[in-house]
Amino acid sequence: MKNQSADPTDMPRAPKNKPASEEAGHNLPARKLLTEAQEGEVRAARAGSFTTARATVPELEAILYEPLPVLDHGFVRVVDYMGDDGAIVQAARVSYGTGTKQVSHDAGLINYLMRHRHTTPFEMCEIKFHVKLPVFVARQWIRHRTANVNEYSARYSILDREFYIPAPEHLAAQSTANRQGRGDVLEGDEALKVLSLLREDSERCYAHYEEMLNESGDGTVIDAGRRGLARELARMNLPLNVYTQWYWKIDLHNLLHFISLRADPHAQYEIRAYANVLFETVKRWVPITAAAFENHVLAGAKLSRQALDVVKRLLAGETVTQPDSGLSQREWRELMATLGRDD
Amino acid sequence: MKNQSADPTDMPRAPKNKPASEEAGHNLPARKLLTEAQEGEVRAARAGSFTTARATVPELEAILYEPLPVLDHGFVRVVDYMGDDGAIVQAARVSYGTGTKQVSHDAGLINYLMRHRHTTPFEMCEIKFHVKLPVFVARQWIRHRTANVNEYSARYSILDREFYIPAPEHLAAQSTANRQGRGDVLEGDEALKVLSLLREDSERCYAHYEEMLNESGDGTVIDAGRRGLARELARMNLPLNVYTQWYWKIDLHNLLHFISLRADPHAQYEIRAYANVLFETVKRWVPITAAAFENHVLAGAKLSRQALDVVKRLLAGETVTQPDSGLSQREWRELMATLGRDD
Amino acid sequence: MKNQSADPTDMPRAPKNKPASEEAGHNLPARKLLTEAQEGEVRAARAGSFTTARATVPELEAILYEPLPVLDHGFVRVVDYMGDDGAIVQAARVSYGTGTKQVSHDAGLINYLMRHRHTTPFEMCEIKFHVKLPVFVARQWIRHRTANVNEYSARYSILDREFYIPAPEHLAAQSTANRQGRGDVLEGDEALKVLSLLREDSERCYAHYEEMLNESGDGTVIDAGRRGLARELARMNLPLNVYTQWYWKIDLHNLLHFISLRADPHAQYEIRAYANVLFETVKRWVPITAAAFENHVLAGAKLSRQALDVVKRLLAGETVTQPDSGLSQREWRELMATLGRDD
Amino acid sequence: MKNQSADPTDMPRAPKNKPASEEAGHNLPARKLLTEAQEGEVRAARAGSFTTARATVPELEAILYEPLPVLDHGFVRVVDYMGDDGAIVQAARVSYGTGTKQVSHDAGLINYLMRHRHTTPFEMCEIKFHVKLPVFVARQWIRHRTANVNEYSARYSILDREFYIPAPEHLAAQSTANRQGRGDVLEGDEALKVLSLLREDSERCYAHYEEMLNESGDGTVIDAGRRGLARELARMNLPLNVYTQWYWKIDLHNLLHFISLRADPHAQYEIRAYANVLFETVKRWVPITAAAFENHVLAGAKLSRQALDVVKRLLAGETVTQPDSGLSQREWRELMATLGRDD
Repeated sequence: MKNQSADPTDMPRAPKNKPASEEAGHNLPARKLLTEAQEGEVRAARAGSFTTARATVPELEAILYEPLPVLDHGFVRVVDYMGDDGAIVQAARVSYGTGTKQVSHDAGLINYLMRHRHTTPFEMCEIKFHVKLPVFVARQWIRHRTANVNEYSARYSILDREFYIPAPEHLAAQSTANRQGRGDVLEGDEALKVLSLLREDSERCYAHYEEMLNESGDGTVIDAGRRGLARELARMNLPLNVYTQWYWKIDLHNLLHFISLRADPHAQYEIRAYANVLFETVKRWVPITAAAFENHVLAGAKLSRQALDVVKRLLAGETVTQPDSGLSQREWRELMATLGRDD
Repeated sequence: MKNQSADPTDMPRAPKNKPASEEAGHNLPARKLLTEAQEGEVRAARAGSFTTARATVPELEAILYEPLPVLDHGFVRVVDYMGDDGAIVQAARVSYGTGTKQVSHDAGLINYLMRHRHTTPFEMCEIKFHVKLPVFVARQWIRHRTANVNEYSARYSILDREFYIPAPEHLAAQSTANRQGRGDVLEGDEALKVLSLLREDSERCYAHYEEMLNESGDGTVIDAGRRGLARELARMNLPLNVYTQWYWKIDLHNLLHFISLRADPHAQYEIRAYANVLFETVKRWVPITAAAFENHVLAGAKLSRQALDVVKRLLAGETVTQPDSGLSQREWRELMATLGRDD
Repeated sequence: MKNQSADPTDMPRAPKNKPASEEAGHNLPARKLLTEAQEGEVRAARAGSFTTARATVPELEAILYEPLPVLDHGFVRVVDYMGDDGAIVQAARVSYGTGTKQVSHDAGLINYLMRHRHTTPFEMCEIKFHVKLPVFVARQWIRHRTANVNEYSARYSILDREFYIPAPEHLAAQSTANRQGRGDVLEGDEALKVLSLLREDSERCYAHYEEMLNESGDGTVIDAGRRGLARELARMNLPLNVYTQWYWKIDLHNLLHFISLRADPHAQYEIRAYANVLFETVKRWVPITAAAFENHVLAGAKLSRQALDVVKRLLAGETVTQPDSGLSQREWRELMATLGRDD
Repeated sequence: MKNQSADPTDMPRAPKNKPASEEAGHNLPARKLLTEAQEGEVRAARAGSFTTARATVPELEAILYEPLPVLDHGFVRVVDYMGDDGAIVQAARVSYGTGTKQVSHDAGLINYLMRHRHTTPFEMCEIKFHVKLPVFVARQWIRHRTANVNEYSARYSILDREFYIPAPEHLAAQSTANRQGRGDVLEGDEALKVLSLLREDSERCYAHYEEMLNESGDGTVIDAGRRGLARELARMNLPLNVYTQWYWKIDLHNLLHFISLRADPHAQYEIRAYANVLFETVKRWVPITAAAFENHVLAGAKLSRQALDVVKRLLAGETVTQPDSGLSQREWRELMATLGRDD
């Protein structure tokens, strides 16, 4: 099978034996995400050059296999893709027949599909990512069921000594306004204390993980007189901010749905950071679709019948207040924000 | 978007105005499947040559976009794909870690995955087909839900004048042994009568379809003084042997599952014909996986606990008969067939 | 297993040997949907009375097993269900924790979930229908993949002599405005001709189906000297307006999604008729959810960023016309319709 | 909505402020799984008595809502269900028509469906569980995508102070034979050390979780002068053996598939413990299906073509050894084990 697999890299593993506490800095350059050996492998894969009659997107090829940094140790890498904007148009022209020729150009057709929830043509494109992410983010991510996943298994292998430690500006207090979001950023001693607890517990739990395994992260046996706890058990001592990694393959329609939910301001910052990077790859891959999605979904609005009634009354020149709007206070605030009438 | 979509062909339509009765011959050469204009488009697409760093399979590129004939007017075309045998190995090595390095070679690993139902690595490969098939076959096919589909819509466009008419050797009588299969082939007058009824009803229904539409298959208005019934209604007069077409995209794991069910001798001949052609494309695409699948699934056997007990007793030199086997007569017959002991 | 299965009816079959042409009348009373024997079975099932500690909805029990008529020979029957509005609230309180106690009542919480696309609590309810429907409707219906289906099989059994013949008021011409909808209703001779073609072709195809089978619809062998074509082949002569039936099981979230797409004015009338009856059963089953769905989805509106900009400019007192709106003519018309400003 | 929701319990929370180290004992009586208040609620739900015409299974009603203990703090509760063995038979008779009447009784039909992979009738039954389980088990569990889930959210609520600490007899060493399983049980000092590390790290991490939240597990603010870290962030300090809980709803076909994979000897002990309890509930719910599943799947065997060839040669009286079998050493060992010929 020589030369067949375009990406020969095995699962990249982090440089070993470097305590998480030394790596809490952010905006690390991309090269720090991989070991030197892995960087060589990625370089080789990126240099691979095959001839194909398949749809090919130069803008996406330009970043193929390259790790795009997210959070302190995470990344997203595009490792394969199928289709382009043209494949969507082609599928739509199959479904809707020659009638779609009336639509003057591809962008118009893709806008039409997006506006009218004709989702199946967007399912004709597929993309595969390699993602490194903290376990608590992975637990939110995996709730999206319409994707294919192969995760690094801590039953079989030893996890890297890498933990997510929030940057100080993301160390938010619990919101007092509602239960679901973050409030202001913690400051001073409280912030320092939190960071120090997170770092120390990560370090200690990992050290004990190695001790229970009787094996250090690089595979060296610690004490020849001991047996070592099974990996599938020892991992349970690791905290939820430990990093894991997986291959994740999804079609464009479901990827956009993922982004619409996870790039939303209500989503937790840490998964939003990944959703934003995913969307950057979508813009390179299918630029016409990305623009239509931004216009109709990300920056669009949904109005209930009651909200629509308020808009009609306002347009008719009527003065409307929350109590006579039929909306709850919360719905009223949301509508006013949508209409840019916060006051 | 010039040059982006590698396959510029719109949905190929059949040559017009040729009555089905003239086309009942089988084993038509592939070139008859498409109009001349479409053949030109496919030739152009096949000549397309892009540079990619993605996994590329020359054996599959060799038939990309080319219609592979099935039944009298049907075909299967591979129009895109993602991944290869190497992508499966790569995903497995992520999941099962460096431990999988013990497996001496890729074929061994893929065999292991197949034997132990580790299905997720096979989901990392994706393929897209363009299929032309009779509606009654499409109705069985679509029951497989884990795929993406864009079908030619008879709400928007006029269907081709093409109907499946079985070859004489597939004109089977109802089985008398069981309700689910076919018996011997019909012969003589009964066969001729059936073929003539199928052809005449297809022709008549299509002619009335055009009459109700007030439009012939090539779009010419028949009678300017009439309005024409809506396409979404007129189509209901077409019989279930009319041909439709769709784009169908599926991952390798689910494609193999489809093939295991539809290439099975219990499946109806007409869908089996498609499953067999699909499997030919799989052999070109991922030859190691195809071989493992043949060994473990297609040509393998499942034994119940009771059947396994019979095998053990036979191996111990015991004489076992159906009445003292714990198996029903039907299960006994199936087991003896599996063991090659029909007598 | 005596007494366990609450609905003992086998698949109801239509009264035999009645030509479709005599049944084209509409608004048939429900009792005509089933044979007398089946009516007795449904009566017995409806009289069944078990004691359960599960959530139970008296308003839905009141119509359990009863066929609700749709089109000329179709029906929808609720044959089982799981959960109620309370199950949704319960699941949401699990997910969102005690914070959800702030929401003053269940209706408020369900509205909140609907508004913010928190869809998983709605997946906690499940319902099972028995549906009789024309094949061309079944082909649209089955495109919704997130459901479980068991369809009456024409490989094993003989289909009923029942065909959908549109009522005169649904005999629409092809729209001239766009390719996807219906225009005005056909009248006079053209309408009569269409109805007569549909009826005659249905009748003739069914008669030939019986002739090829060498068996009439009630199972009588026609000519002992012939073998009869296999059922799986003979069915291909039937037109797309023949009725089939299936059991269809789906969770509430996906059912609402089905209804939002298929009760839409752009959906074909025939499937819309089914979607409307399904929604009537939802109103009985989960009335709070049905009301929230109507407010937020069915009667709500989606605005793109560009459309939202137009609304903001209008609210600011600006005069906006299509050419300076950033919207296409089609989008402009749709927005004006949404805002009730058609002129 | 009074009286509608049959199970009025909110998510049960564990008794507070009890350190995990005091709860490491196993085989706790079921009553310890819930607080006293919750026990009262479950008692009330179980006493609920509604009249329904739906299929009802007294053997399952007998344990409805009751927590069945798993591991040290986990449980499985059946909270709703739809259908029974009869519903499967009914769906099969729809699909396979009157031909299935040939099968002499329901058990024969269900066996036939199981043997021939006719899976859709088993999808007609649905069940809903409430499960409490460690996070590392939840991460394996959620890989099954064909189910509906609502999980307790640590973004909104504070997790219980409950951690899985293996019983001494499950404290296995890493297998030396292969990378995927467990070897012998750890003993003596090494075992004591592991248990002590797991307990101490769990305790310390939870204490720091409360400190970062500035809130104890029962909601009391610790220091009015501090803000408290957002819950969605603080949770990342908890180890993977912390317990979470969810509602999980699945159809019978997919539940059996889950059990076949997770009750398998290769599955990790901790998830196998749950799979076994799930299977106990299946036996109460659909006893005929459970028996067929045991015979055909759990205790059955799959043979590759090569393994089948070996069996045939053995039956023909030939002496076969691994080197001339066509099987790898591993495959040979597995086949000999299947045939009960380990030596």
